[in-house]
Amino acid sequence: MDVKNYMQTLGKQARDASRDIARADTNQKNHALVAIAAAIRRDAVKLLEANARDMEHARANGLDSALLDRLEINENTVTSMAEGLEQIAALPDPVGEITDLKYRPSGIQVGKMRVPLGVIGIIYEARPNVTADAAGLCLKSGNAAILRGGSEALHSNQAVAACVREGLEVAGLPATVVQVVETTDRAAVGELIIMKDYVDVIVPRGGKGLIERITREARIPVIKHLHGNCHVYVDDRADQAKAVNIVDNAKTQRYGTCNTTESLLVARNVADAVLPEIGRVLAGKGVEMRGCPETLRILQGAAIDADKLKAAVEADWEEEYLGPIIAVKVVDDIDAAMVHINTHGSHHTDAIVTEDYGRARRFLREVDSASVVVNASTRFADGFEYGLGAEIGISTDKIHARGPVGLEGLTSQKWVVLGDGHIRG
Amino acid sequence: MDVKNYMQTLGKQARDASRDIARADTNQKNHALVAIAAAIRRDAVKLLEANARDMEHARANGLDSALLDRLEINENTVTSMAEGLEQIAALPDPVGEITDLKYRPSGIQVGKMRVPLGVIGIIYEARPNVTADAAGLCLKSGNAAILRGGSEALHSNQAVAACVREGLEVAGLPATVVQVVETTDRAAVGELIIMKDYVDVIVPRGGKGLIERITREARIPVIKHLHGNCHVYVDDRADQAKAVNIVDNAKTQRYGTCNTTESLLVARNVADAVLPEIGRVLAGKGVEMRGCPETLRILQGAAIDADKLKAAVEADWEEEYLGPIIAVKVVDDIDAAMVHINTHGSHHTDAIVTEDYGRARRFLREVDSASVVVNASTRFADGFEYGLGAEIGISTDKIHARGPVGLEGLTSQKWVVLGDGHIRG
Repeated sequence: MDVKNYMQTLGKQARDASRDIARADTNQKNHALVAIAAAIRRDAVKLLEANARDMEHARANGLDSALLDRLEINENTVTSMAEGLEQIAALPDPVGEITDLKYRPSGIQVGKMRVPLGVIGIIYEARPNVTADAAGLCLKSGNAAILRGGSEALHSNQAVAACVREGLEVAGLPATVVQVVETTDRAAVGELIIMKDYVDVIVPRGGKGLIERITREARIPVIKHLHGNCHVYVDDRADQAKAVNIVDNAKTQRYGTCNTTESLLVARNVADAVLPEIGRVLAGKGVEMRGCPETLRILQGAAIDADKLKAAVEADWEEEYLGPIIAVKVVDDIDAAMVHINTHGSHHTDAIVTEDYGRARRFLREVDSASVVVNASTRFADGFEYGLGAEIGISTDKIHARGPVGLEGLTSQKWVVLGDGHIRG
Repeated sequence: MDVKNYMQTLGKQARDASRDIARADTNQKNHALVAIAAAIRRDAVKLLEANARDMEHARANGLDSALLDRLEINENTVTSMAEGLEQIAALPDPVGEITDLKYRPSGIQVGKMRVPLGVIGIIYEARPNVTADAAGLCLKSGNAAILRGGSEALHSNQAVAACVREGLEVAGLPATVVQVVETTDRAAVGELIIMKDYVDVIVPRGGKGLIERITREARIPVIKHLHGNCHVYVDDRADQAKAVNIVDNAKTQRYGTCNTTESLLVARNVADAVLPEIGRVLAGKGVEMRGCPETLRILQGAAIDADKLKAAVEADWEEEYLGPIIAVKVVDDIDAAMVHINTHGSHHTDAIVTEDYGRARRFLREVDSASVVVNASTRFADGFEYGLGAEIGISTDKIHARGPVGLEGLTSQKWVVLGDGHIRG
């Protein structure tokens, strides 16, 4: 197979289809979404069979258990995929929304209209449900999509893709609005991320290696986050019960997500008072604490199990553990905390626990992260929790979209000018 | 001089200064803007002397008259620079604005806060007033800036830069908030556009060659437009008097601007009725018309001066003439017009003249350009006319900012989350 030629063909078809889907009205798009959901429910057995083939190959190839976990689907996953699409159908259509339409002194009216980006290229690993989610979000936001899943999920993704195509056609839309790349040749990714004429933005979802490679090689804008080194800073005016709860939830509610807290900062004035309780809660859940000397002194004094305590090295302040480990540092005050976060953080999600009004305001303004949080868990940083309905990914970049990216992040705004024969003087 | 090392130093200083300017309050920023304006007024003679040296070198080096035109400043230009800065001081501060703050079912409040991008790199040619404008826009939007003007304007730019530094210091801000590159070595541009750690976005302003080179080589997001091939489409339901006025203004009000119309499309049903009058007006102003065969037949029949008529070749549909030439084509209808615009246009600014409500709505939605205009001149597409106050440039890209880019285009939005001890369930 000539991969370059194949990808160029997908690109051209996507560009053409993008014009149709940009013009499609809300009803037609919702019709397609609901029809895709119905096809997925009806084909549940087929999807599970296709997935079973992928799982068999994956096991034969010795893939690790984390990857197998993400690859496997069951009846609940299938139902969730269908429900996810129905939820997207229920979201307001962002396309065509006109805002800020105002008369100017010249007599013209000027405003902004929300429009699709065009063609979105999505590159992801393992999870077959991303195929349905991404197809749904791109479709609803009026974009065409080229989806490139991992080779380990090929059969599962193709089974989902068949349902997507069917739903599009039922609604009278071209099946090429969503195309799933059918080759597992890695050159397909290389081609996808440089086809400037056919692809407007790339969204990579997966491990740091994948995202670094794509960011380096892409010649198209990339919406991405590399990693999430999220912080909780416990201020000396914190409510200590809230602090313990928030740190516990932010660290232990789920270990493998990018909005999980990886570093804890505690103001020196309250370290002796608050660290022992936090240490007991985390140690009780099997979390290893890598502390600065002061942290270790306090936690050792509080009789925390020695095998849960370790001296932090410089690299710990940068680390995304994605597991039951947390870095802990005692800092002077909010200024030191913010310097630490802005220097060592990943600009993803960072929280302060404080009852001090002025410090809360300063933290919100001065911490340079996609999400800044006062008195709540970093785990809230997610499209569903923020009310976006769903997310295509999370961005830690500042250009275009920041934080969880939903339907709106897949659109841009053009200017509309209304006159009645107006000319410029 | 070690250019790489020099640029890295500017970069580091800009990154540090960006933290200070991001935190600066509105009063302090306005104070700096007004102080810079005062320094420029006071130093008018110095600025004109520095500019005279640049003009002398430029003439000695045989620079063309268009470039000399753009390079030259006079007392009015100096006053305009100062007034421009005072106008920026009078604009609302976009930084820190919180919008859409809503309670979510979990009990947290989620909203968006507008924040600076960080460090803006601006690369421009000739016009010394860009130094003052760009400095003012970056400062007000809370960004640090590295400005790299053309070597031909070195002395002028440095004289302006001295005023900028003085104003920043008067207001208690670091002089490094705005740095003007002091070397004319072209390697400085090459370095500026790859310093990912220190620069967040590049704004190139200048000829197509400069912008193509920067887009190709940059490893940082670029806000740009390559060229402006703007269209007016005269529909067969157009008010013909409006059509003639709008085409005249859009083509002839200024020839050298990117929002000047370069292509005219006319619906076949009204071509015989409307083209002769348009032809007479344009020919009377010395505009050459490059027409399709039907256009030529109609204009020749209307006794338009033969030396103003020429057969269009395929390349004319793509051309940005920046002069008294216009491409003219008779098309079937609005559908053909929109296909032509979306295919041959530059996605900058395109207008329809029509009294038909449905067609106006379709044109607004389906034409894929940064500005879409109904019954008004394309010449309105500009930051002042749109009410942005000033513009750093115009973008024909879809990611981040589209069309005229003002203060808001130099910011992004982060998420703010307010809770009261909330944890995720």
